[in-house]
Amino acid sequence: MVYFDSDYMVGAHPLVMQRLVDTNMLHTPGYGRDRFTAEARQTILDLCGIADYGDVFFLEGGTQANAVVIDRLLDHNDGVVAADTAHINVHEAGAIESNGHKILTLQGENGKISAPLLRRYIEDFYKDDTNRYMVRPGMVYISFPTELGTIYTRSELEEINRVCADYNIPLYIDGARLAYGLAAENCDVTIRDIASLSDVFYIGGTKCGALFGEAVVTRRRELLPRFDSLIKLHGATLAKGRLLGVQFQTLFTDGLYDKIGKHAVQMAMRLKNGFVSKGYKLFIDSPTNQQFFILPNEVIDRLRSVASFELWGSRGEQSTPVRFVTDWSTTESDIDTLLECL
Amino acid sequence: MVYFDSDYMVGAHPLVMQRLVDTNMLHTPGYGRDRFTAEARQTILDLCGIADYGDVFFLEGGTQANAVVIDRLLDHNDGVVAADTAHINVHEAGAIESNGHKILTLQGENGKISAPLLRRYIEDFYKDDTNRYMVRPGMVYISFPTELGTIYTRSELEEINRVCADYNIPLYIDGARLAYGLAAENCDVTIRDIASLSDVFYIGGTKCGALFGEAVVTRRRELLPRFDSLIKLHGATLAKGRLLGVQFQTLFTDGLYDKIGKHAVQMAMRLKNGFVSKGYKLFIDSPTNQQFFILPNEVIDRLRSVASFELWGSRGEQSTPVRFVTDWSTTESDIDTLLECL
Amino acid sequence: MVYFDSDYMVGAHPLVMQRLVDTNMLHTPGYGRDRFTAEARQTILDLCGIADYGDVFFLEGGTQANAVVIDRLLDHNDGVVAADTAHINVHEAGAIESNGHKILTLQGENGKISAPLLRRYIEDFYKDDTNRYMVRPGMVYISFPTELGTIYTRSELEEINRVCADYNIPLYIDGARLAYGLAAENCDVTIRDIASLSDVFYIGGTKCGALFGEAVVTRRRELLPRFDSLIKLHGATLAKGRLLGVQFQTLFTDGLYDKIGKHAVQMAMRLKNGFVSKGYKLFIDSPTNQQFFILPNEVIDRLRSVASFELWGSRGEQSTPVRFVTDWSTTESDIDTLLECL
Amino acid sequence: MVYFDSDYMVGAHPLVMQRLVDTNMLHTPGYGRDRFTAEARQTILDLCGIADYGDVFFLEGGTQANAVVIDRLLDHNDGVVAADTAHINVHEAGAIESNGHKILTLQGENGKISAPLLRRYIEDFYKDDTNRYMVRPGMVYISFPTELGTIYTRSELEEINRVCADYNIPLYIDGARLAYGLAAENCDVTIRDIASLSDVFYIGGTKCGALFGEAVVTRRRELLPRFDSLIKLHGATLAKGRLLGVQFQTLFTDGLYDKIGKHAVQMAMRLKNGFVSKGYKLFIDSPTNQQFFILPNEVIDRLRSVASFELWGSRGEQSTPVRFVTDWSTTESDIDTLLECL
Repeated sequence: MVYFDSDYMVGAHPLVMQRLVDTNMLHTPGYGRDRFTAEARQTILDLCGIADYGDVFFLEGGTQANAVVIDRLLDHNDGVVAADTAHINVHEAGAIESNGHKILTLQGENGKISAPLLRRYIEDFYKDDTNRYMVRPGMVYISFPTELGTIYTRSELEEINRVCADYNIPLYIDGARLAYGLAAENCDVTIRDIASLSDVFYIGGTKCGALFGEAVVTRRRELLPRFDSLIKLHGATLAKGRLLGVQFQTLFTDGLYDKIGKHAVQMAMRLKNGFVSKGYKLFIDSPTNQQFFILPNEVIDRLRSVASFELWGSRGEQSTPVRFVTDWSTTESDIDTLLECL
Repeated sequence: MVYFDSDYMVGAHPLVMQRLVDTNMLHTPGYGRDRFTAEARQTILDLCGIADYGDVFFLEGGTQANAVVIDRLLDHNDGVVAADTAHINVHEAGAIESNGHKILTLQGENGKISAPLLRRYIEDFYKDDTNRYMVRPGMVYISFPTELGTIYTRSELEEINRVCADYNIPLYIDGARLAYGLAAENCDVTIRDIASLSDVFYIGGTKCGALFGEAVVTRRRELLPRFDSLIKLHGATLAKGRLLGVQFQTLFTDGLYDKIGKHAVQMAMRLKNGFVSKGYKLFIDSPTNQQFFILPNEVIDRLRSVASFELWGSRGEQSTPVRFVTDWSTTESDIDTLLECL
Repeated sequence: MVYFDSDYMVGAHPLVMQRLVDTNMLHTPGYGRDRFTAEARQTILDLCGIADYGDVFFLEGGTQANAVVIDRLLDHNDGVVAADTAHINVHEAGAIESNGHKILTLQGENGKISAPLLRRYIEDFYKDDTNRYMVRPGMVYISFPTELGTIYTRSELEEINRVCADYNIPLYIDGARLAYGLAAENCDVTIRDIASLSDVFYIGGTKCGALFGEAVVTRRRELLPRFDSLIKLHGATLAKGRLLGVQFQTLFTDGLYDKIGKHAVQMAMRLKNGFVSKGYKLFIDSPTNQQFFILPNEVIDRLRSVASFELWGSRGEQSTPVRFVTDWSTTESDIDTLLECL
Repeated sequence: MVYFDSDYMVGAHPLVMQRLVDTNMLHTPGYGRDRFTAEARQTILDLCGIADYGDVFFLEGGTQANAVVIDRLLDHNDGVVAADTAHINVHEAGAIESNGHKILTLQGENGKISAPLLRRYIEDFYKDDTNRYMVRPGMVYISFPTELGTIYTRSELEEINRVCADYNIPLYIDGARLAYGLAAENCDVTIRDIASLSDVFYIGGTKCGALFGEAVVTRRRELLPRFDSLIKLHGATLAKGRLLGVQFQTLFTDGLYDKIGKHAVQMAMRLKNGFVSKGYKLFIDSPTNQQFFILPNEVIDRLRSVASFELWGSRGEQSTPVRFVTDWSTTESDIDTLLECL
């Protein structure tokens, strides 16, 4: 059996796991006050070129990272603008609203929001003089890559950043699959661009080689005052915080994070080319580790015998959109097993 | 100057005001434990034919009524299904989300949601096996009349009621302008129908002749356990609760509430006919006290000299939708003053 | 029967009621954008001597005023310091916590908190290096008068104000019964002192002559940004906002608010002297409109035949603390009826 | 250097770590739908003797476990009764209040609450007829062992359980250090007793041999409806849920959890006897892995040269309370190194 359901089906990258084993018996202070966490923080700050005014915080998971960051950035009864397909709007069980915040949705295009549409939305809000009883757009949420595997170009990010700057609201980038976005062919964005074009973003660990964990990064530390407390208040503080430091330090040593991204994307392209060359239709053209096709139901049923993967929505009459996800552990033979079955 | 901005521009109906004056110096216990509140509760229960198993609670305003009822009816991380144009989704400053609840919006038709669309939405939720991380539709919110002045027919309400019953989720009806809906021509719904086809609804006082206040009514008192406490927790408990009892008792004496509705609708029809007979286009065909037209901007500017009213959205190039609202205090001469200026 | 249960058992002072009647049929914009509200705001700003940098907001009730102000002043996971007997800690159904805020209680003395105890509490918080996972004292709440009818001296307020200033946290004063505190014999505090020694306070209307309503006042308008929206979000915005403006404008015309306070306190002193001269023990020595005695149960039972009043806690073996409350409507003959029955 | 600061200073017990390594490269479904989680759940259900009607859920940490369980068990504006020293009241940054719930504190004795005091508190609540505007005691929280290392006897738990049963409110036991409580000398409570005398409890992993993770257990699964969703809403769902299943399955294989508890308690007793035999005063007499002494400041300073440990409160004039914590990794030589320095 080969597995393409998602990028969180195996444990940690062997190098990360090994490092956790090597450090297992060491005694360190709890709650992230250990040297591993300090090292990892510094490594990421340097990598992003924001050592002088930025900050980094490590959390256990992505839903937490989104919930805590948004809770920190939004003032009372301001809302977060996001694409209708955004993870926070669909698959986090109402976590954002449970903290009292409204999600203001924009119609997305392939999972992305466009700067002009965003600008118009905010302009209209300020035009309406009854706006004092409407929820004010208080920040913008985008993901890189998006839920649909697509990525923003550098100029698209610059445009969105400009809209946010014009209205003085922060831009937050969800990087749950950041490694796979940065490794995409034709991606003209670096992690430094992400750091400088967003106000806050997070580097995904869970889906990109870590056992678990995400790193929230800001180039403006004044945006996240007393953030440690807020993380604790949300129950997102790991007692053995060093586990997160150890993992991220490993991921950003010898370019492991890049390698993980590149490998998964290579496997994804091999998979995509295989389907396309056999004449199957793309549901969406993704340059990252998630691949979407519209397959005849009989093909889907046949593939099920050798591979596990997800339908993307409900099963159709004749055909159905499906998703295949690769990661650092995917092998060429996994792909070939799948393709041979087509 | 004549006023059509809204139905909360004057105080209370003179009979309501007089009754407040007559009772002003009486001593009564606070927080709704007085005889006036008890009388008004009984009057409404009898009127709705639910004296044996229903209950009534009086609150200060509509945003509160919606917030407290929805907070009571929804379980953790369930959401309320509503039309995209719903008041709770647009003009209550995020009050619902501030209590932790997501609003699940359906595309409305003239402000109404359709039973088939509602059924499909809920069916799809239960089809998707990842639904445990999505917000579950936990109740349905509609308004009667809607934000756009339209009303549901009896059979439409029965259909929506059936969908809710099939999925065992409560139906809540926002009756901020109930008097004007029940008084609409061709309205085939009575207040008893509202009471029996909804699980909870509220009778609007603020916009229908009271100085302020709304009456939350349920035919199933077990749906609102310890509701007094929750009202207090939301800061919606009036110390001198008898003020609400006195007002609603008056509104439901000698059919005053019906008269108020009928008068305002008559004035609205006179206004509508005046515009239509002069060839102006309806923006939407409303049978209640809110009337919407698309007027040439020069006509709008001319009318402004004699009347005050609201644009419905932003000013267009040549023409703009506008709203005129009548209430119990609108006179024929108010209407004529407006029409003569056309 | 004579009534001493509380100060919200009758309607509005006749002059306030008359003014509501006189203005009842006028058309004004909703939500506090009317001229009456503007006048009342200006009157209060001038009265408090803070016209240049202060602001005033009108809300429907005291629980709302407390909840909305505290929600606005507290940052995430900061708490409000208050006396253990504080209204917000005991009798508001958890309204503060329902907005996510912890109440940090200090042992009160006769309902008051002492500046030295407050300082020690805050000092200890900052001493403890695990404080980042404890709730930070983010503001201080006191009431004037307190739940027990006692009042702070000017120097006590100055001391508390100094502690707050030293730690840069706002001081909020709950003035639900402000009229009765300012009118107390030996009170050396004026409303200007309240305005200048607090960061935010509210002027009680409901218990001091209004039908309902409270006026939130701040000398630092930057402390309450976008407060209108937050009031709406909490469901505390009155559609016919002018009702509040009209009432407060009347209360602060020709010194009505002072007269109301003075009269009620005179009646309270007459009542106190009557009990004391007959040898009954004070439960607490209150200079305001709430009077507390410890009475033999047989006396309580006898008084019940002519007067209505509250036990203060549960009935004891032989004797029980009781509370008698006077207000603007209390007459000398009410008091005498009570005293004659002793 | 030897470490006694806390029981979360090292990683996982070597057997747990090994098992994580062994299963690292396996593919499993996410979010706890894997076979390891299923096995661990069944193991714990059987161990507790509640397989027929109970349920088990795995969360990442203790603050989350407390927050999510309490959020699930409490109705709107009900509060949780706990000792004033309770972890949820002091060291969780207001996590409970941030979900809208008030903590109702009882004066503890050595960190424990007494059944008679609890009963009186609840009785008083129901005696007071103004209780509808007070926060209702909706559940009871205790910890086993407590913050001070003390444990309840079986009969004490039975008494508290009876009070809860009499008022039909659930009893929740925080078992962050459960292993060390069950292993205490003279402990007459088994894990089956904990399971049958509580309505919900959690088995601490983080402090008892796991890398991280806690297991929430209930003997009444109807108490935790749609709990998976609520865990997700709180951001407490681990994508690679099997990590928790793998760890708990290991902890409950071949009695590892018991061995971990027994070893730490043995080390703690050796430490206690060492101090006592040298004439040092106990701050509190704890039978578990936390030991508290009152030491002269010069002794504290001397010990600092060889050992790391926490002051319990602020440094006193001559002497200060201190805490020493042992765990599964503490060795006899660690203890001796400390004692020799006395």
